[in-house]
Amino acid sequence: MPDTVIALDIGGTKVAGAVVDRQGMLLRREQVATNAAAGPYTLMATIIALATRLRDAFPGVAAIGVGSAGQIDHLTGRVIYANQHLPGWTGMEIGRRLGAALALPVAVDNDVNAMALAEVTHGAGKGRRVVIVAAVGTGIGGAIVLDGHLFRGASGVAGELGHIPLAAAGPRCVCGNRGCLESYATGPRIAAAYARAAGLERPIALPEVVTRALNGDKAAHLAFARAGERIGRALAGLVNTLNPDAIIIGGGVMAAGDLLLPPLRAALRRHSLGPACSAVVALPAALGTDAGLIGAALLARQRE
Amino acid sequence: MPDTVIALDIGGTKVAGAVVDRQGMLLRREQVATNAAAGPYTLMATIIALATRLRDAFPGVAAIGVGSAGQIDHLTGRVIYANQHLPGWTGMEIGRRLGAALALPVAVDNDVNAMALAEVTHGAGKGRRVVIVAAVGTGIGGAIVLDGHLFRGASGVAGELGHIPLAAAGPRCVCGNRGCLESYATGPRIAAAYARAAGLERPIALPEVVTRALNGDKAAHLAFARAGERIGRALAGLVNTLNPDAIIIGGGVMAAGDLLLPPLRAALRRHSLGPACSAVVALPAALGTDAGLIGAALLARQRE
Repeated sequence: MPDTVIALDIGGTKVAGAVVDRQGMLLRREQVATNAAAGPYTLMATIIALATRLRDAFPGVAAIGVGSAGQIDHLTGRVIYANQHLPGWTGMEIGRRLGAALALPVAVDNDVNAMALAEVTHGAGKGRRVVIVAAVGTGIGGAIVLDGHLFRGASGVAGELGHIPLAAAGPRCVCGNRGCLESYATGPRIAAAYARAAGLERPIALPEVVTRALNGDKAAHLAFARAGERIGRALAGLVNTLNPDAIIIGGGVMAAGDLLLPPLRAALRRHSLGPACSAVVALPAALGTDAGLIGAALLARQRE
Repeated sequence: MPDTVIALDIGGTKVAGAVVDRQGMLLRREQVATNAAAGPYTLMATIIALATRLRDAFPGVAAIGVGSAGQIDHLTGRVIYANQHLPGWTGMEIGRRLGAALALPVAVDNDVNAMALAEVTHGAGKGRRVVIVAAVGTGIGGAIVLDGHLFRGASGVAGELGHIPLAAAGPRCVCGNRGCLESYATGPRIAAAYARAAGLERPIALPEVVTRALNGDKAAHLAFARAGERIGRALAGLVNTLNPDAIIIGGGVMAAGDLLLPPLRAALRRHSLGPACSAVVALPAALGTDAGLIGAALLARQRE
């Protein structure tokens, strides 16, 4: 199979790997636990073993593409920064190590960048020219895709939608600032907002908040409505500035897309100017959990 | 002079015209009153007469570049929307009329786009790759310049920095929304904020507020500090998202740049993430009032 590449998607819970053809079809898929607690070198060995198994099954693979959680230097394939979900992962030279072990060209990028590339090439953003992608989960990541290419900015860190300021003060964000979008609208923040409103002693899991909202719990509904309003308002500033033709929203919290999207779209309309507003659609991501693998394969195609 | 173009800068008060060489030098400059009250066709005749005089003085000019106030369709050279400062200007086919009258290729764009192109090519943004330009005056306009080219977005209306939302509610903006950057930080809004704080019956002119601030008037100083904070906070969202290497601030209010820039830079630092923040500088525009003409000449170069 000369026309295939290996795709890897490295997250805090699992590492997925696949052999992917030129159409973005997954020919073989494997998944293993990340087991982050065992440390970065054990994780790297796990990844190399997974990639080797896939390569041995499809000896003709031409390249490897990797999407990893954390901030990634895509030019060197090194992890610039990873948070507590991947302890010790900061500094890991994913590209060099994988390349040396398998003797294949390797492209490494952030997992949200990979997902965004997949959605614009094969998913919800197909045919769109100026696309903003937001991934709403434990945090809020993002990416900008212009004419099918990731826009990286001047030093490679473009796309941090989660830290758009929505208030001068506001809640403390994980980044240290106050009032960032991410301090209002992530899964944990939505669950916490619901717990406060409902007078719970501690937050319940987000899927339970979803169930309560769908069963008519007004406080649960409001927690999603407020998060959607914040995301829409933050995105409106980008709509006015970048004039995109599509916004794609993915990430774990989009399991509650029906609760989140209507208030998000209403805020987007309210806070964006007519000509820019009428040019854009806000769509849920279409490729589901395999978007990261499909995008990693696209990254690999750039290194064949 | 075969290597020259005609540049025109159309504003609500004056129309400036110049013959510009390849280095961006103004070989001959003329200026006439806009006299907007006389209506759009009188204004168009004034512009054609000015361009004709310049062409007759330099018969070898190769093209015409125009920067005009208002929203401009740069593909057709038509005014999409102009406000009350240029009554009737909406719909004017500047490009077609000038081209027919002078039998030269014509490029037309928004005056802030022209200024931005000039600053990135010959001014404060020279050598920068990802540049955000803000023009703070009666309103707040903006432009994005990527690798030396204006970024126009999906439908040509990118760059409307003035309508980035800073608050869910907030003061009513001219666009109809609430809490836009422009509802806080323009010249008239700064003058109004000072008048309220100082207990004046009506706002005084902005240069007078500047003088008072420089003479130690705390309320005047605070009016600029608050505006600078708002501009910096709005720009921080773009720094996190676009990762620019330069922000250039121009427009009439930058006559008070020494009052505006320090709080602007402080807010930019406070609300932007470390890696993106360390990649960017915020600089005052360098080309002064001729930036519009120099930029219009650059637009013309694209149509030679």
